[in-house]
Amino acid sequence: MKGKVYLVGAGPGDPELLTLKALRLLGTAGAVLYDDLVTPEILRLVPSTARLYNVGKRAGTRKISQQEINFLMIALSESGVQVVRLKSGDPLIFGRAGEEIEALRQAGVPHEIVPGVTSAFAAAAIAGIPLTHRHSSSALVFLTAQQAAHSDPSDWNKLAASGATLVIYMPGRNYAELTARLLACGLTGNTPCAIVSRGTTPQQQTHRTTISNLCTAPLLPSPALLLVGDVVRFAGADFSPVFAVETFTGLDAFRSPESEGPTA
Amino acid sequence: MKGKVYLVGAGPGDPELLTLKALRLLGTAGAVLYDDLVTPEILRLVPSTARLYNVGKRAGTRKISQQEINFLMIALSESGVQVVRLKSGDPLIFGRAGEEIEALRQAGVPHEIVPGVTSAFAAAAIAGIPLTHRHSSSALVFLTAQQAAHSDPSDWNKLAASGATLVIYMPGRNYAELTARLLACGLTGNTPCAIVSRGTTPQQQTHRTTISNLCTAPLLPSPALLLVGDVVRFAGADFSPVFAVETFTGLDAFRSPESEGPTA
Repeated sequence: MKGKVYLVGAGPGDPELLTLKALRLLGTAGAVLYDDLVTPEILRLVPSTARLYNVGKRAGTRKISQQEINFLMIALSESGVQVVRLKSGDPLIFGRAGEEIEALRQAGVPHEIVPGVTSAFAAAAIAGIPLTHRHSSSALVFLTAQQAAHSDPSDWNKLAASGATLVIYMPGRNYAELTARLLACGLTGNTPCAIVSRGTTPQQQTHRTTISNLCTAPLLPSPALLLVGDVVRFAGADFSPVFAVETFTGLDAFRSPESEGPTA
Repeated sequence: MKGKVYLVGAGPGDPELLTLKALRLLGTAGAVLYDDLVTPEILRLVPSTARLYNVGKRAGTRKISQQEINFLMIALSESGVQVVRLKSGDPLIFGRAGEEIEALRQAGVPHEIVPGVTSAFAAAAIAGIPLTHRHSSSALVFLTAQQAAHSDPSDWNKLAASGATLVIYMPGRNYAELTARLLACGLTGNTPCAIVSRGTTPQQQTHRTTISNLCTAPLLPSPALLLVGDVVRFAGADFSPVFAVETFTGLDAFRSPESEGPTA
C-alpha cells in the first residue's frame, strides 16, 4: 500500500507556531523532506524513527532539482512510507508546491495539504501592524522582489500602486533598487515600511523606515520580509528595532522521547 | 498587576489548525472573547475555569460595538485577568485588530499578537490550488467584495486586473454583481474560480466554475471565499464539489479535563 504524502506548512520559525495537525503528522511520519528555512527547533520535534532529508535548494554541495524532490517523495510513498513534505510558512505560496502536487497526482500518490502560518502574518504580529485597517488599507498584496524580472513589470506596478498594503517576500539585498521601483510606481517617499528579519526566531530583528530612507537601512539577514504601506504607521511607539520573543519552555511536552533532531 | 491581552488567530475552523501557542494560551486564559466565526469545536478546548464572552458583532439581540469590546478587554486586564481575544483566521487581516491594538496601547495594557492560519490558505489547501505558480501567477491579493463601496474603486480594479491570484473574502450573495465587476476589470469570462464555503469544518463545501458562470453557481453558506485566477485550473480532476475532511480523533488529548465548552 502506498504511503500518503502530506505537504505541510511549518509556519514562520517558532515551533509553537506549528499547527496541532503539523505536530501530529511530524510525530507519525516515516520520512520528512524539509527546506532550508525550516528551523532546527522544529526538526527536533521529529522522532528519530523518521528519516530526515534536507531537500533545500541550497543543501550540501550541489543543487537538488525539483524533479529529484518529486522522485524522492513518490519513491518513498511507493515503498509504503508516510511522508511529510515540510515547507516554511504556508506550503501554497511562493514554494513551488504546484509542481509537487502535479507530480503526486500523476503518480497516483495519495496526498493532502496542511496549511500553515505564513511569515507575513508573523512579521505583522511582531511589529504590531494590522495588515488591513478600516481607515487605511482595505486590501493586502503578497509579492516577491524577484518576480519583477520574470513577469510583466506592469502587473507588479499595478499591484504596488493599488493603495493596498504590500508584503514583499524575499526583498533581496538591493534596497536602493527596491526604493526606485516603489517610487516609480507612484508611492510617495514618506510611505512607511518595515523590514522583519527571521521573524519569530531568536535571531529576529526589525527595522522601521520610509521608502525614501530604505536605501540607508541596515541589511538584515534573510529570510526577511518588507511591509509597505500606510498601515505601518500603526506600529506605534512601542515598535523597537529588536523585539523580544516570548520564550516558551513547555515545548518539551510535545517532543517525542526518541527525538534527537536532524540526522541526515 | 494588569493581565496580559493576547490577540490570537483561531485559524479557519478545524481545531487541529490552531497553533500550539494558541492552544497553550486558551488553556491558561482567565477570559476568552471570541467572534461568531470561531467554531464550537475550538471553544470546547477552553477550560471551564475561563469566562467565555461572545463578542461577535451579530451576537445576541443587539450589536456589540467595537468600543464595548475594547472596554471589556481593558477592564478584564485591569482586574488582573489574562485575556485571549480570539479571532477566526489570522487576527491582523479584515478583523479590526488595528482598533483593538490602539485601545490597548492607549490604556497601557500589555499585549501580544499570535498569528494564525488564514482561511485563504485553508481554502486553497482543500481545493489543492497553489496560490502562486512559477508558470502562472507570481503574486497574491486578498480583498473583500464589500470594500469596493468604501474605498477607491479604481484601486480594486487595479488589483483585480493585475494578473495576480485573487482571494475575495466575504464575497457576499450577489454573484452576478461580482461577475460584472470582475469582467469590467478586464478579466476574461473563462478565468477559472472556486468558491470554498466553511472550509475545514464538517460543513465544508466547494464549487468550481468560471467568472462567466459564477452567476449560476449555488449560493453556498458563509463564511465563504472566492479564489479567482489561472492557478485555479491546477486544482485538477480530483477537485470535487464536496471534500471529505480527514477526521481526527486525537483532539481529546489536548482538551483540559474541566473543559465543558461555551458557558456564556
